[in-house]
Amino acid sequence: MPPAPLSRSGKSRRTTDSPISYFIQKALETPGLISFAAGLVDEGSLPVEEVGAAVAGIVADPLTGRAALQYGSTQGLPELREQVLQLVCDADGVRPSDVNLTADDVCITTGSQQLLYLLGEVLFDPGDIVITEAPSYFVFHSLLQSHGAKVLTVPLDEHGMRMDALESLLERLRRSGDLARVKVIYTVDYFQNPTGLTLAVDRRAKLVELARQYSTNHRIIVLEDAAYRELRFTGADLPSVKRFDPKNEFVVYTSTFSKPCSPGLKTGYALMPPDVMAPLLHLKGSHDFGSGNLSQHVASRLIASGAYAKHAEHLRNVYRKKRDLMVQALETEFRDFPAARWTVPAGGFYVWLTFDGIDTGPDGPLVPAALEAGVLYVPGQFGHVFDDTDSVPNNECRLCFGVATEDQIPEGIRRLRKACAAISAGKREKVKASV
Amino acid sequence: MPPAPLSRSGKSRRTTDSPISYFIQKALETPGLISFAAGLVDEGSLPVEEVGAAVAGIVADPLTGRAALQYGSTQGLPELREQVLQLVCDADGVRPSDVNLTADDVCITTGSQQLLYLLGEVLFDPGDIVITEAPSYFVFHSLLQSHGAKVLTVPLDEHGMRMDALESLLERLRRSGDLARVKVIYTVDYFQNPTGLTLAVDRRAKLVELARQYSTNHRIIVLEDAAYRELRFTGADLPSVKRFDPKNEFVVYTSTFSKPCSPGLKTGYALMPPDVMAPLLHLKGSHDFGSGNLSQHVASRLIASGAYAKHAEHLRNVYRKKRDLMVQALETEFRDFPAARWTVPAGGFYVWLTFDGIDTGPDGPLVPAALEAGVLYVPGQFGHVFDDTDSVPNNECRLCFGVATEDQIPEGIRRLRKACAAISAGKREKVKASV
Ligand SMILES: Cc1ncc(COP(=O)(O)O)c(C=O)c1O
Ligand SMILES: Cc1ncc(COP(=O)(O)O)c(C=O)c1O
Repeated sequence: MPPAPLSRSGKSRRTTDSPISYFIQKALETPGLISFAAGLVDEGSLPVEEVGAAVAGIVADPLTGRAALQYGSTQGLPELREQVLQLVCDADGVRPSDVNLTADDVCITTGSQQLLYLLGEVLFDPGDIVITEAPSYFVFHSLLQSHGAKVLTVPLDEHGMRMDALESLLERLRRSGDLARVKVIYTVDYFQNPTGLTLAVDRRAKLVELARQYSTNHRIIVLEDAAYRELRFTGADLPSVKRFDPKNEFVVYTSTFSKPCSPGLKTGYALMPPDVMAPLLHLKGSHDFGSGNLSQHVASRLIASGAYAKHAEHLRNVYRKKRDLMVQALETEFRDFPAARWTVPAGGFYVWLTFDGIDTGPDGPLVPAALEAGVLYVPGQFGHVFDDTDSVPNNECRLCFGVATEDQIPEGIRRLRKACAAISAGKREKVKASV
Repeated sequence: MPPAPLSRSGKSRRTTDSPISYFIQKALETPGLISFAAGLVDEGSLPVEEVGAAVAGIVADPLTGRAALQYGSTQGLPELREQVLQLVCDADGVRPSDVNLTADDVCITTGSQQLLYLLGEVLFDPGDIVITEAPSYFVFHSLLQSHGAKVLTVPLDEHGMRMDALESLLERLRRSGDLARVKVIYTVDYFQNPTGLTLAVDRRAKLVELARQYSTNHRIIVLEDAAYRELRFTGADLPSVKRFDPKNEFVVYTSTFSKPCSPGLKTGYALMPPDVMAPLLHLKGSHDFGSGNLSQHVASRLIASGAYAKHAEHLRNVYRKKRDLMVQALETEFRDFPAARWTVPAGGFYVWLTFDGIDTGPDGPLVPAALEAGVLYVPGQFGHVFDDTDSVPNNECRLCFGVATEDQIPEGIRRLRKACAAISAGKREKVKASV
């Protein structure tokens, strides 16, 4: 006799498997497949020697060795918090005091993903509203589903989230009385996952201004996910959204060592207002009372020795080359295919490919045709949420050039072109057959 | 003008700072203080060389180096899951197939703390009931508070959780119709934090039997927290509670590398039924989509090389010595103090000290007297929860001999004795003054 069934929580019942798990699984199971699906980082450039040297340095002295192997604190290693603060402020061209920040406003987390989760836990009750870009980071959407938050979206153009549309949305919510449920505006503002687009500088200032303006009875937090910021390979860095929050009131800035250094450290960080920090740390105390301490010591040592900055510079070259290869391949393969358009990201590792008239969705014809040809992408649809009124576009693909090798990139795009051709031929066949 | 206030979630509003944070803070601020409060591990025996060698081995080959520095999977490193399964089954004297377990039933987490949190998230809605030992692990109580779970307790005797009392409680809940809200029975069954007590073997079988028997309409999960199991320094290992769940249906077994190896790795693990695993992994996908991968590779290599087993053996000697020092000091100092009783743990690092007629609570006289004398303990009260009817004992202390050095242990106990004397003198003064 099977045992009685589990009685799961509401939260668990709201939480489903990530739709892209299926795609990652497919990739693992299909030998020879070129995957533009997984958001993994470039394998060959992982800082193996650097991390080896950092750990060797840490264990060379029993004192530092023991400090790294003991429990750390819930908020994270003080030195690393100082370093992270300095990194972000240097990038923004300010001193910490200019923007009312100290290392007490920094928290270290198990990747930036944990920060996204924890912040949601601090703020969201089921039914609360989160405003995101359309499309946005898939896993953030899963997390909002767990929390029972309702997602409303703002479209992007080539300058990122459209502030006019955000303003209209907020105004509409104000009028309908729903503003009280709006907790967060989420932006992946550097080389967005999934589109590769970046928020323009004037919109950054405007975003904080709108959050402030609509924070009438309660505060609306801007959650700035800068995961890819340090992987810019063209043009000058832009100030963070956080830079426009000089009193440290409205913006939570989060980033990670996963992308510009190593995901194996699974170490992220965030800068936030003190009244967000306190409840977040209380929750983190229950989650784990501190993320991996050894990894934090490694990250700290990599920064202190200069290896971190040097490696990030190296990665910028690695990913620029890969971006170029992908964009060139798209130009070569899809030149005679007017239905295809794609973004050219200035950093990060995502190209967003849009087709007129091809269904790229998980149940459409392109997924099987691409698998047949030996290439995998993530259907753009997964970056969208179905809200009350709209249907979501089903003609977009996320192409990640993070993990595919330089040889695989042009070949993968060729295969994708072949898959498109196969579908078009199939369509012509169908048309012919029905004539 | 200050910004509008945050509007926090119900969960966040339920979550307060851990009461022992204050004590840890006090310890850090008071120079010369001997702390029996913090549950940290022995500093001098941390496996600095071993971890150094493991990382050197990992980075020596670019392939293994890259694998450790890339993202891992949500469930955790397959090799490590195999190893952990084997460790637990070896300790229980069974083959995995005897107890219906494979590596698919193992999950790696950010310390065992994260497992406790995640399992709570899978199962608890506010108002659900969790049965724990009285007293129990402080941080588990905080976590239950976050989840809004209601705690009901079962007393301990020298053989651990009393099964007769558990059975009466379950029966009472059945009669009152509240059984439907009972989700978990939690036991720290080896050298419990905070009492040092261990669950006797016949009670282990009975515990599973009771869970099964009362799982009429839904399953009641036994959460076995075996964090200290590998730190046994007297007597033979006992089979786990999980051992008595041969179909892998009722018991979630969790343990950690923090105690028998290094907390800096912050790597824990759990064995659980498949229908608990699936929703737990969905949630973990939102939390972090996988714990630190480098740490998992380190743990795996330490096990594979035999360094782990050797180090755990070494730690058993370290902690046995410390336990002996503490118990001897208690005998020496409190011989003439009949009001004091203490447990003699067979493993782990906690001694539970009970005084007749001395208020050990955070607002009682012993805390300041002990601080004055230069020693700190955790008031036992924090291990208890106030439920509907009862008041909690305020005459107990948790003494941790984990982090205090061998020199500090006897000196700390001397200071505690001095503090007790000071209070007694104070009491006599008061009596005299009021005569
Ligand atoms: C936009 C964005 N934010 C956050 C993360 C989380 O990464 P990590 O938790 O490794 O820092 C990712 C990873 O893919 C991401 O793309
Ligand atoms: C009983 C018990 N369970 C779980 C934990 C969590 O430890 P970790 O998350 O480091 O594995 C502790 C730590 O003190 C503990 O005492």
